[in-house]
Amino acid sequence: MTKMKFIKKKIKFKTNKQFEINDLTSKAEEIVLNSGIKSGILTVFSLHTSATLAVNEKESCFFKDFEEFASRIVPKEKYYRHNDLNVRTENLVCSPETEECLNGDSHIQHMFIGYPSVTLIIEEGKIILGQWQRIFFIELDQKRDREVLFHIMGE
Amino acid sequence: MTKMKFIKKKIKFKTNKQFEINDLTSKAEEIVLNSGIKSGILTVFSLHTSATLAVNEKESCFFKDFEEFASRIVPKEKYYRHNDLNVRTENLVCSPETEECLNGDSHIQHMFIGYPSVTLIIEEGKIILGQWQRIFFIELDQKRDREVLFHIMGE
Amino acid sequence: MTKMKFIKKKIKFKTNKQFEINDLTSKAEEIVLNSGIKSGILTVFSLHTSATLAVNEKESCFFKDFEEFASRIVPKEKYYRHNDLNVRTENLVCSPETEECLNGDSHIQHMFIGYPSVTLIIEEGKIILGQWQRIFFIELDQKRDREVLFHIMGE
Repeated sequence: MTKMKFIKKKIKFKTNKQFEINDLTSKAEEIVLNSGIKSGILTVFSLHTSATLAVNEKESCFFKDFEEFASRIVPKEKYYRHNDLNVRTENLVCSPETEECLNGDSHIQHMFIGYPSVTLIIEEGKIILGQWQRIFFIELDQKRDREVLFHIMGE
Repeated sequence: MTKMKFIKKKIKFKTNKQFEINDLTSKAEEIVLNSGIKSGILTVFSLHTSATLAVNEKESCFFKDFEEFASRIVPKEKYYRHNDLNVRTENLVCSPETEECLNGDSHIQHMFIGYPSVTLIIEEGKIILGQWQRIFFIELDQKRDREVLFHIMGE
Repeated sequence: MTKMKFIKKKIKFKTNKQFEINDLTSKAEEIVLNSGIKSGILTVFSLHTSATLAVNEKESCFFKDFEEFASRIVPKEKYYRHNDLNVRTENLVCSPETEECLNGDSHIQHMFIGYPSVTLIIEEGKIILGQWQRIFFIELDQKRDREVLFHIMGE
């Protein structure tokens, strides 16, 4: 009888601009390999509210299509109360220089595109993915420091 | 060697109106604390098709931005076959008084915003969340009775 | 003391057209029943980037509303770089006959509607679902061969 293992690994990285897409697939595969876990599930969890995970095809024309789509549905230049320092009073940790919290579009994009967690299946020590599936982290805000958690539960 | 534990807890609550946001974070943290589980995963599951879970920032200006956005993309007053009792014949448990099933906009909003489950990681007996992340239940229908399940698997 | 079990089952099926909805609920229930697992979680995972899972109400008028909505927000006839063989150079496995990869709308629809995994809770050998919840596979592309994985972890 084997024993359940719980492996957790956090990665940190910098993004450069809105709609930048980071492919996390190789990192996820490496973490699963190093864990020694053969059967179980991998939870990928983003710690952010203005960036999201996604699982889709790695194709740069599609990435441009996506950027155009998200900007069309939720334009940056639209009015957002979240950006209006005359009405907003909560969570104001931004400064006029960085404007780090004036990201009304990013939060709305997260609502309609995003989800914080993806669950992947591990079999024979490998993550099961379809032919075109890659695990993405998508920046929906300006350049920022980001963190993603990988958690494996299995034997 | 410890033994895997499975803890399930259902909560019930009433919502008051469309786009009301309930913050479930403290409840989730309390359930994890009471479970005694130190490592594992928490699945939050909404039992509804016209309301959704979300993980985002708790900021009331953003909540208003979101309400405006969702109402703009999926307006209540648009034509929905789901609301047209001349064409619809299935799942008709609504009455003219309550109009409880005439929620075509709510179901569509659920499709483009919603997801039924979120998986969170538990470490050292605590849910791991980013600085701005809170776990929300968002009503997309009129006032209703709602249920959310919390399920913890771990040691 | 019982032992953790890991059950995996892949199903294969053909879809016939964009926006076709397949109800996977009975299949999921059958797999859970056959697994003999009484407590745990079921992960449903779609192996595709131009189709998605969803959990919503099984009502054909709503299905038509959804098709109209998705086609309105992401029209097939719009310009997509992903479909433009003058600019696209990656992942070109389509042929002029099948045009299988000219699915720019499908990928964008997947971004704003889709998610690859759903986690469901199993108690007393049954999947817990709300009164109106059914587990769907939604084709967002043309007719294709599709695969869905079911993974149960529990005792």
